[in-house]
Amino acid sequence: MNKLLYGVAYYDEYMPYERLSTDIEMMKAAGINLIRIAESTWSTHEPQNGVFDFSSVDRVLDAMHEAGIHVIVGTPTYAIPTWMVKEHPDVLAETPDGPGRYGARQIMDITHPSYLFYSERIIRKLISRVCDHPAVIGYQVDNETKHYRTSGPNVQLQFVKHMREQFGTVEQLNEAYGLDYWSNRINSWEDFPSVVGTINGSLGAAFAKFQRKLVTDFLAWQTAIVNEYKRPGQFVTHNFDFEWRGYSFGVQPDVDHYEAAKALDIAGVDIYHPSQDDLTGKEISFGGDSTRSLKGSNYFVLETQAQAFPNWTPYPGQLRLQAFSHLASGANMVEYWHWHSIHNSFETYWKGLLSHDMGPNPTYDEAKTIGRDFARLSDKLVNLKKKNRAAVLVSNEALTSLDWFKLPGGEVRYNDIVRLVYDRLYEMNIGCDIVYPSSSDQFGSYDLIVVPALYTASDELLNALNEYVENGGHVVYTFKSGFSNEHIKVRPSAQPGLIEKACGITYSQFVEPGKVSLKGNPFDVKASDNNISVWMELLTPTTAEVLAWYEHPHWGRYAAITANRYGKGMATYIGCLPSEAVVRKVLEGAIREAGIWGVDQELQFPIIVKSGVNEQGNKVRYYFNYSEEPRSFVYPYGNGVELLTDREIPLGETIELERWGVVIVEEQ
Amino acid sequence: MNKLLYGVAYYDEYMPYERLSTDIEMMKAAGINLIRIAESTWSTHEPQNGVFDFSSVDRVLDAMHEAGIHVIVGTPTYAIPTWMVKEHPDVLAETPDGPGRYGARQIMDITHPSYLFYSERIIRKLISRVCDHPAVIGYQVDNETKHYRTSGPNVQLQFVKHMREQFGTVEQLNEAYGLDYWSNRINSWEDFPSVVGTINGSLGAAFAKFQRKLVTDFLAWQTAIVNEYKRPGQFVTHNFDFEWRGYSFGVQPDVDHYEAAKALDIAGVDIYHPSQDDLTGKEISFGGDSTRSLKGSNYFVLETQAQAFPNWTPYPGQLRLQAFSHLASGANMVEYWHWHSIHNSFETYWKGLLSHDMGPNPTYDEAKTIGRDFARLSDKLVNLKKKNRAAVLVSNEALTSLDWFKLPGGEVRYNDIVRLVYDRLYEMNIGCDIVYPSSSDQFGSYDLIVVPALYTASDELLNALNEYVENGGHVVYTFKSGFSNEHIKVRPSAQPGLIEKACGITYSQFVEPGKVSLKGNPFDVKASDNNISVWMELLTPTTAEVLAWYEHPHWGRYAAITANRYGKGMATYIGCLPSEAVVRKVLEGAIREAGIWGVDQELQFPIIVKSGVNEQGNKVRYYFNYSEEPRSFVYPYGNGVELLTDREIPLGETIELERWGVVIVEEQ
Amino acid sequence: MNKLLYGVAYYDEYMPYERLSTDIEMMKAAGINLIRIAESTWSTHEPQNGVFDFSSVDRVLDAMHEAGIHVIVGTPTYAIPTWMVKEHPDVLAETPDGPGRYGARQIMDITHPSYLFYSERIIRKLISRVCDHPAVIGYQVDNETKHYRTSGPNVQLQFVKHMREQFGTVEQLNEAYGLDYWSNRINSWEDFPSVVGTINGSLGAAFAKFQRKLVTDFLAWQTAIVNEYKRPGQFVTHNFDFEWRGYSFGVQPDVDHYEAAKALDIAGVDIYHPSQDDLTGKEISFGGDSTRSLKGSNYFVLETQAQAFPNWTPYPGQLRLQAFSHLASGANMVEYWHWHSIHNSFETYWKGLLSHDMGPNPTYDEAKTIGRDFARLSDKLVNLKKKNRAAVLVSNEALTSLDWFKLPGGEVRYNDIVRLVYDRLYEMNIGCDIVYPSSSDQFGSYDLIVVPALYTASDELLNALNEYVENGGHVVYTFKSGFSNEHIKVRPSAQPGLIEKACGITYSQFVEPGKVSLKGNPFDVKASDNNISVWMELLTPTTAEVLAWYEHPHWGRYAAITANRYGKGMATYIGCLPSEAVVRKVLEGAIREAGIWGVDQELQFPIIVKSGVNEQGNKVRYYFNYSEEPRSFVYPYGNGVELLTDREIPLGETIELERWGVVIVEEQ
Repeated sequence: MNKLLYGVAYYDEYMPYERLSTDIEMMKAAGINLIRIAESTWSTHEPQNGVFDFSSVDRVLDAMHEAGIHVIVGTPTYAIPTWMVKEHPDVLAETPDGPGRYGARQIMDITHPSYLFYSERIIRKLISRVCDHPAVIGYQVDNETKHYRTSGPNVQLQFVKHMREQFGTVEQLNEAYGLDYWSNRINSWEDFPSVVGTINGSLGAAFAKFQRKLVTDFLAWQTAIVNEYKRPGQFVTHNFDFEWRGYSFGVQPDVDHYEAAKALDIAGVDIYHPSQDDLTGKEISFGGDSTRSLKGSNYFVLETQAQAFPNWTPYPGQLRLQAFSHLASGANMVEYWHWHSIHNSFETYWKGLLSHDMGPNPTYDEAKTIGRDFARLSDKLVNLKKKNRAAVLVSNEALTSLDWFKLPGGEVRYNDIVRLVYDRLYEMNIGCDIVYPSSSDQFGSYDLIVVPALYTASDELLNALNEYVENGGHVVYTFKSGFSNEHIKVRPSAQPGLIEKACGITYSQFVEPGKVSLKGNPFDVKASDNNISVWMELLTPTTAEVLAWYEHPHWGRYAAITANRYGKGMATYIGCLPSEAVVRKVLEGAIREAGIWGVDQELQFPIIVKSGVNEQGNKVRYYFNYSEEPRSFVYPYGNGVELLTDREIPLGETIELERWGVVIVEEQ
Repeated sequence: MNKLLYGVAYYDEYMPYERLSTDIEMMKAAGINLIRIAESTWSTHEPQNGVFDFSSVDRVLDAMHEAGIHVIVGTPTYAIPTWMVKEHPDVLAETPDGPGRYGARQIMDITHPSYLFYSERIIRKLISRVCDHPAVIGYQVDNETKHYRTSGPNVQLQFVKHMREQFGTVEQLNEAYGLDYWSNRINSWEDFPSVVGTINGSLGAAFAKFQRKLVTDFLAWQTAIVNEYKRPGQFVTHNFDFEWRGYSFGVQPDVDHYEAAKALDIAGVDIYHPSQDDLTGKEISFGGDSTRSLKGSNYFVLETQAQAFPNWTPYPGQLRLQAFSHLASGANMVEYWHWHSIHNSFETYWKGLLSHDMGPNPTYDEAKTIGRDFARLSDKLVNLKKKNRAAVLVSNEALTSLDWFKLPGGEVRYNDIVRLVYDRLYEMNIGCDIVYPSSSDQFGSYDLIVVPALYTASDELLNALNEYVENGGHVVYTFKSGFSNEHIKVRPSAQPGLIEKACGITYSQFVEPGKVSLKGNPFDVKASDNNISVWMELLTPTTAEVLAWYEHPHWGRYAAITANRYGKGMATYIGCLPSEAVVRKVLEGAIREAGIWGVDQELQFPIIVKSGVNEQGNKVRYYFNYSEEPRSFVYPYGNGVELLTDREIPLGETIELERWGVVIVEEQ
Repeated sequence: MNKLLYGVAYYDEYMPYERLSTDIEMMKAAGINLIRIAESTWSTHEPQNGVFDFSSVDRVLDAMHEAGIHVIVGTPTYAIPTWMVKEHPDVLAETPDGPGRYGARQIMDITHPSYLFYSERIIRKLISRVCDHPAVIGYQVDNETKHYRTSGPNVQLQFVKHMREQFGTVEQLNEAYGLDYWSNRINSWEDFPSVVGTINGSLGAAFAKFQRKLVTDFLAWQTAIVNEYKRPGQFVTHNFDFEWRGYSFGVQPDVDHYEAAKALDIAGVDIYHPSQDDLTGKEISFGGDSTRSLKGSNYFVLETQAQAFPNWTPYPGQLRLQAFSHLASGANMVEYWHWHSIHNSFETYWKGLLSHDMGPNPTYDEAKTIGRDFARLSDKLVNLKKKNRAAVLVSNEALTSLDWFKLPGGEVRYNDIVRLVYDRLYEMNIGCDIVYPSSSDQFGSYDLIVVPALYTASDELLNALNEYVENGGHVVYTFKSGFSNEHIKVRPSAQPGLIEKACGITYSQFVEPGKVSLKGNPFDVKASDNNISVWMELLTPTTAEVLAWYEHPHWGRYAAITANRYGKGMATYIGCLPSEAVVRKVLEGAIREAGIWGVDQELQFPIIVKSGVNEQGNKVRYYFNYSEEPRSFVYPYGNGVELLTDREIPLGETIELERWGVVIVEEQ
């Protein structure tokens, strides 16, 4: 599909009365050219075991085709019918909290053969029926798949076999995971206990990784089935989601997105975020960079918010700002969840583009202007290519390990540290990619890699980062990086393990700061921003330059933040949790060292700049105003055209940005 | 019983040593003329299956009769004996938390045939034994009955049958409850899952209503048995209680009082409330109005606090103030729970009239003055008739539905909104009744009906309210009213559903206020009281007059509070959660419009006025001072007599009220 | 062992690589002359059922003997192997939360015959193998034993038999525990329900006491087995621990230390405490006094912190301060948990003397100076004899009863009140012992006994306290004392039960203070310190002198704190929860009355004085500076020698104490 897609999730099955033609009329008026259907309604399509009824699918496909609206068909497997649970209660996942209860979606054991049998049957029935329909442009396998904490005896058995495959002997396993401790040794594979109650972080984290693999395997299995029916030009995607803190916050703990995306044609994602006065664009940017990086190309926003919650109902202008922000990160699709607000059940107050009264409303009216602009500018804006010089390295394993070995207080978790560094790059308009432990072959294409809290890492990974620096790369590490190996065994060597070489520091003690600040306010920030919190490593520089010392009667002789030239590059190490302001300054230093600082960095949040190259080979730059006040700036690039207004923009032109405004300049 | 009853719950079985004659002597000294016995001590009366021992009942009845003290005998069914649980462990209610555990009271499945068999047997044994005893004036069936969350397979089965009776077909059910959503469809009655895990609010609320029906049925069943033995002049009552927030706060979620009271002769209730500096009389008034309204006549306060908790031990004067406040609401009985403080087990710190030392104490000494006044003034104060012009409409179903669809933050719940409006009426000395969805035939007898958060309501009910306004009535609605139908399906029409006609407004969006106030402080309140919180509907007036607009950069074009003349009446709509001060002003406006404002409204809390007509046909007015400071006021009515002091009170007399004082004037 | 022991827990089994000779070398350098082994590693020593492998024990014993380091061998029974759980899943304790899950230590049913069988077998195998080894100086039975809430059917059955033995008939039981209440009567022993769900505090507390007896019995059973092998000169000890609030806070709820210690030769303990800016020495002192009092002699600190947590890593000097503080309380051993920081599993961040890098670090370096001084001064400091004139009476039963009948708010618990009084004595340098209800024969040896919140007590105990006062003793009671009998039945007499005689007061009402202070600030403290909180009894003096009245409009006529001469002694009663400052003043008054006030009391925290008599019969005085600032004081005793510096100290000499400093003066 070589065009911008503007879509909604559509549930004909949920309608309180016959609406199809009215809905299509209103969709057309709003420029909607795509819908997604079928992913939640298994019990409607298979009302009894082996009895199928796809009439709502058929009629929607036909009507949409007639209206020129494309359709993505989802496999309906993430919410199971009542009859299945009544016949086979054990399809419900047994979790650490006990056996499952019917009611919600996403409650089954995704490894259970009964569930897999019924899933395969409905997938084949549905996809074989729709694959030749001209409205269908692609498929979504399942939805927001996770492992749902499945951990009953059958899963434990698979895990034991997985462990045996990995370690060969119990001796190896005991050694790697330190199971002598508290008499946890497993001296015979038959003695392997359920790990649900384990207090061993190495074992617990290995199980969490195994559970993520269940998701990867499940999605690959579904995709392989759908691929049997997929027609040329059709795609398979999946709707990934992020760690949920009331919105899409950070790295998904339960899925290895990078591995799971390999089976797919196109990466898809849902991105939800605070709005109204709290709209910053950070989640749109983080979610976009993460998803674009999965397959190194454009992606689909399969779900994002229209009206949503009472505290998210957008202010005038915000829906537009959001839509173009997605495009600016490389999305080729913006699709709302969902078309109409639902009148019963759980998500009644998660409102769609239409309110419950199903008529026009201010949010719908604003969507109409987006649909119009998407259609008009599709050629210019679709398939934006981005080439970033900075990257952030994230790791599911580091996340899990820091959940096992929490920072003091337990409130600052892995994703807080990820967002602490990512958000500062965003605010400084540093475009960046996301890289993973398993994509270390890509490190060389960046000038700067930021590595938050890489608590667990193999020797190979740490050596790769050392080599990257040696060869001229720039790395900024935070505290906790390098501390333990891939089995979350703390390295019994000098810390930070292996990377002490590139960082030029060492430490063996770490404490919790009470009232500790950085000596002499070295980054010239507000006094309160000069304090540190939660964690401090007592660093001793070997070859590093000290950027900041601790201010403390006893710990004052230790370093807090250092930078070290190593080979042709430089490694910066942040040994404590500083304020956002200090992190920004440290990153700014590394950015300048890496030679990335440019004119876009003269602008700062709330003015956000995103850019890429379009299919015509022209540079396209988006300027966003993420604030309630109008802003202006001087355009610093070659002559261009503002695409929304079709106005010429010469170098040096002062551009006005309305509150929550957007401007798009194509350099000619 | 044509006299005031002053009583205590009495547990001869709990006494640490032989006390009966001493207790009676002390009761007589305090004017106690009633006790309640037997409702908690099944295991004493039936120590083994089928072995009965009513000796403690017999001796207490005989001794009380000799002393001229009346007795209410309670059926002992709300706390089951150990032998029953040992023989039939499944009489314990299975709840969403799992099977029950023996220990507390109120833990059984009130539908279980074993429990019902044993209950019926002990009821018949006990009541047949005591019914001819001259001490016995009536019976209490069970105590504070609820459904105890019973929801095991047998209850689920009953519920499925109940659903089939209500809907006939699964198609109707699926449609009404929106079960297509998340694959929750039930395509065959056999597939009906336990609703314990449901995420469907319509279904969940239907089950909650079904559970309330279990209570209604259970109480009717017990009452029918007792009625077989009841002698002329004897009554059957029940001890209802309220939503418990550490005290009697609001509408009881688990019982439909209005329905359950139908089987009874007289409505009874327990009312517990904050005391000491926090004593306001609000719970006494709310509990009294609620209970009086159940059968439209005088009621019993079967339990209220004597010393109770360390933070409730009354200040001097408060016990009197409380006792007369109950009478002023229409109670014919004030009975303390309980006579003596308990020396073991759970309620050791819920102290009775006597402390643990069983001797006189300041609270007991004050009770003596109450008993004396009750006896002396019984003819003047008993059977007070009240005719109120205002009412508050409350709904169990609205309560449940707002627990399923919580307001943002989850802290403001249905009863908070009920109390927000009720307490303002109380403070303004507006006497009011409580009306229910099923008592809509009574609406016409009021000049003003206040309707808090009627989130779920049938078309019939909303039409009745529209008609009421059209015919000259005044309604004040709060936000959320009318939003969903009786199945908690959001109305797919303009909001507020159906009542938009009478209210003259419409809306399709609602948001969570950040820092929003009312434009221009239209009610002239303190700045902080002009802010709103939690919820705001973006109202557009059609025919309504706008009483307040929102102050907000984006939502400022929407109305917050409106009033609309419709037919001969007026409907006021509060579209947000304002401060108490603003609610008071809005209600004051409606009260004046309705023509209810009078001289009693010139007094305000902490001076409280309550009135009625006594058996002599005279107006009796109670004046209470709910404060730590003495107060005075000018008596604005015709010549009367202050009954406590037997002093003449001419029109215009200045009456002094001591701190926590009470004055009762009978107009001659 | 007539010398000071300086030790570490040592886990050869946990080492990430071969370390034994390096470790011994580093231990010797630090003066370590003792290690403890084997208590956590059953699964290493018995890898399969009946297969034993003590090679790591053997090699460590041989190597340590060669190095002259003593060894305590622990029985490995507190952490069970995987094979045992796989073979006999029911060895896991069933608790009120359900069946157990394998994973942690301390999860078994210590009454289960399978567990006991395997335990006995490995104890005999291990101890018989090591008992003749010259490195072995003693044994630790199990570790931090508790009952782990075991309460399944087998334990319930034992409890029923225990109840029958105690009460003989169900009638006695029902009477004692007030089981008529809420139909809880047990009319036949067969009907006895599991008490897991009981709401009867008398019954619940009896079960808690029974569970403590399980621990006593278990430790006696293990000790008897080990005693069969024990050689002359060897000892058996156990590692007791305290109520854990993130550190060793107070009386252990789950173990009756006094009873459990009877089987042992020497009492051992672990003491963990806040550090860095929060280091006060209070827990060292409380833990030491408690443990020394168990057998009335010197004791072992079997575990205390080295680096431990990030917020405990000691400041320079603190490790020394802590070590000598233990000696000053009468310890003959200071042993760190543990030698090396662990690289995997649960306690990775509970660091030992060595960091994870296993090299020297600042904490280890400070340990070297301690080891050197311990060795040099062993003759002078070992076996310090202490004779205290004050004692604090603590009671497991009072603790449990106040958990059943919580103070308002639930935050102030029994141990808070214990520490409220103990810590004030500590701050005033009043050396004290701990006495128990069952050691009332020792009361007479003290001039002052402080009795915090003795909520439950037999007549015998209260009479003993009355007699103690009558005979010239001084008692300071807090509120709640004497209120209930040994069955936690509230005494149906005047309060405070029985001790009202000695205290000369009575009360029958108690309330929760809002803003109540003490009238006229009688103790001349800061205004905020003159407020009371949580609890106030409305005391009426009979013969007592009133030390403080309440300031309150209604309660002002009641006394708050009183003192009463009774016989030759005096009883002080604190009827409310005052500030620390007021408690200090009240205690100071009693101390002066008791004739204990002396020159040590002229110094106050943060300067702490502890003293005793050494084996040479000389008085040894420790002076500690528990603060960040240097301090000085004038030495008020006869000529002595400062032992750490070997400097002479004449009477009147000004002694300087460094921050966190220690000085030890032996009077000649």
